[in-house]
Amino acid sequence: MANADTKVGVVGLGRMGSNIARHLKEDGFIVSVVYDIASDLAKSVADELGCEAAGTLAGVTAGSDIVITVVTDDAAMLTIFSESGDSLLEGASGRVFINCATITPQVHVDVEGLCEAAGGSSLEGCMASSITQAREGTLYLMCGGKQEVFDRVKPILDSMSTDLKYIGTSGQAAQVKALVNMVMNINTAGLAEGLGLGAALGLDLGTLMQVFSQTGANSRVLETDGEDMQARDHECYFSAAHAAKDSGIALSLADDQGLILPLAQASKAQFDKLIEVGKGGLDKSGVAELTFPGRNEPD
Amino acid sequence: MANADTKVGVVGLGRMGSNIARHLKEDGFIVSVVYDIASDLAKSVADELGCEAAGTLAGVTAGSDIVITVVTDDAAMLTIFSESGDSLLEGASGRVFINCATITPQVHVDVEGLCEAAGGSSLEGCMASSITQAREGTLYLMCGGKQEVFDRVKPILDSMSTDLKYIGTSGQAAQVKALVNMVMNINTAGLAEGLGLGAALGLDLGTLMQVFSQTGANSRVLETDGEDMQARDHECYFSAAHAAKDSGIALSLADDQGLILPLAQASKAQFDKLIEVGKGGLDKSGVAELTFPGRNEPD
Repeated sequence: MANADTKVGVVGLGRMGSNIARHLKEDGFIVSVVYDIASDLAKSVADELGCEAAGTLAGVTAGSDIVITVVTDDAAMLTIFSESGDSLLEGASGRVFINCATITPQVHVDVEGLCEAAGGSSLEGCMASSITQAREGTLYLMCGGKQEVFDRVKPILDSMSTDLKYIGTSGQAAQVKALVNMVMNINTAGLAEGLGLGAALGLDLGTLMQVFSQTGANSRVLETDGEDMQARDHECYFSAAHAAKDSGIALSLADDQGLILPLAQASKAQFDKLIEVGKGGLDKSGVAELTFPGRNEPD
Repeated sequence: MANADTKVGVVGLGRMGSNIARHLKEDGFIVSVVYDIASDLAKSVADELGCEAAGTLAGVTAGSDIVITVVTDDAAMLTIFSESGDSLLEGASGRVFINCATITPQVHVDVEGLCEAAGGSSLEGCMASSITQAREGTLYLMCGGKQEVFDRVKPILDSMSTDLKYIGTSGQAAQVKALVNMVMNINTAGLAEGLGLGAALGLDLGTLMQVFSQTGANSRVLETDGEDMQARDHECYFSAAHAAKDSGIALSLADDQGLILPLAQASKAQFDKLIEVGKGGLDKSGVAELTFPGRNEPD
């Protein structure tokens, strides 16, 4: 599987899913069919890629060997893999589903069971990167599931990513991803506090960020989000709403383990607050709107 | 000033102050006199360096051209620069005091005024590094005060540091330092949560840290503290108690500006909790003792 004749379907055509589809076509794969709950969007992407816009989920399975899914949340995952009504599971025998949404780890385990019961296979493909990397095939991609399934679809995974990791059984890649994003969200909300207070004190933020970068305050999010926080450039690569969701997944795992994580709670509360004030669609750097003096005023 | 004949005194012989003294002597400066409130410690360091252990603060000023102070907190700073009783201010005319403690920015402003009234000068020399760097003369050193004072003592500052920055007026370097440590403490407490939850989930922490390092979760503290958190190696380079103090300084600045910083509050609460359970002397990596499963049990 995953040779020159392999037909790939893509379900969920948000900015990640649509750009994965664009990249795969560009890299020589046959993107045979796409689907989105917003049928206009599906039609538009299908026109662009010269493929079919399936009217049903069963139509995606019928028209593909491998189906890549990138949906919004647990509920959407359970809907596309539902045991009754229109579902990807219809005719799933022999198909491999690569599920790239950031969802609760247990849902990956449940979906794996459903796919196998239908004669198919599933693999979680958790992405720790953003839109540009999806478009360019340079995703950081962590996979969980059976090793044989991973090996079977490795050519397509290799096309999608430059950093491909087999993490372990189904659900474990999602756990790692949840931890990555939990820590990233903490660092992001913390950076926003440091820069916001620096601005309030009248310090030169360029100097401050330079000092941060050379000291114990350095972080990846300083590189990616620091200037955006200062410039209020919150064009969305990873939304505040997603940040809140991912921290929530991690906090739920912590709760199951009886661990209390105050920083994760505080950062989730900040991203929740952004959603409450109607700014959940901003990039995660938008958390600086809550910490810079004078920014957090009613519109 | 600060040539081959310059006599340097050092007040406060904790691990930073004593190692600065050792380095300066090794680098060819005349360390003429040392002082610590613990007179045994002062005697021991004086014996090692072959210099005088002053019995009084006034004795330090009398025996030095430049006095480097590295004391614990605001109260200690105001004690060594007191306007009555034994004080560095006695005979301070012509002397330069380089004050390296991490203290409230306003105290630097106040001390500058006191030194100038006594005919001397002061400069804040805020360090964003630790013991090894003090010993090796590779401190990250941010200075605040009058440019002419900075220029006058630059040779000794150059000896102490490899990254020397003139930040601005008195107090501003301390503000930057407070922000650096506030953000560092947030990132540290957040990392401890990520690794603690990873351990609780049974994930391989080596793999998890590798993934963190390659993604949005990367940070300087991951490099410096990640493995120590896993190994419970909390030998103190920067104590939890200092972390709590520095975050407190930043939160006080925020309060003055009317800013609410939930992540800084949550991280300070974690380091305060370490102090409460008698672990304030651990390195800041010790915050992981609160987040790894099974570690936070009564002794």
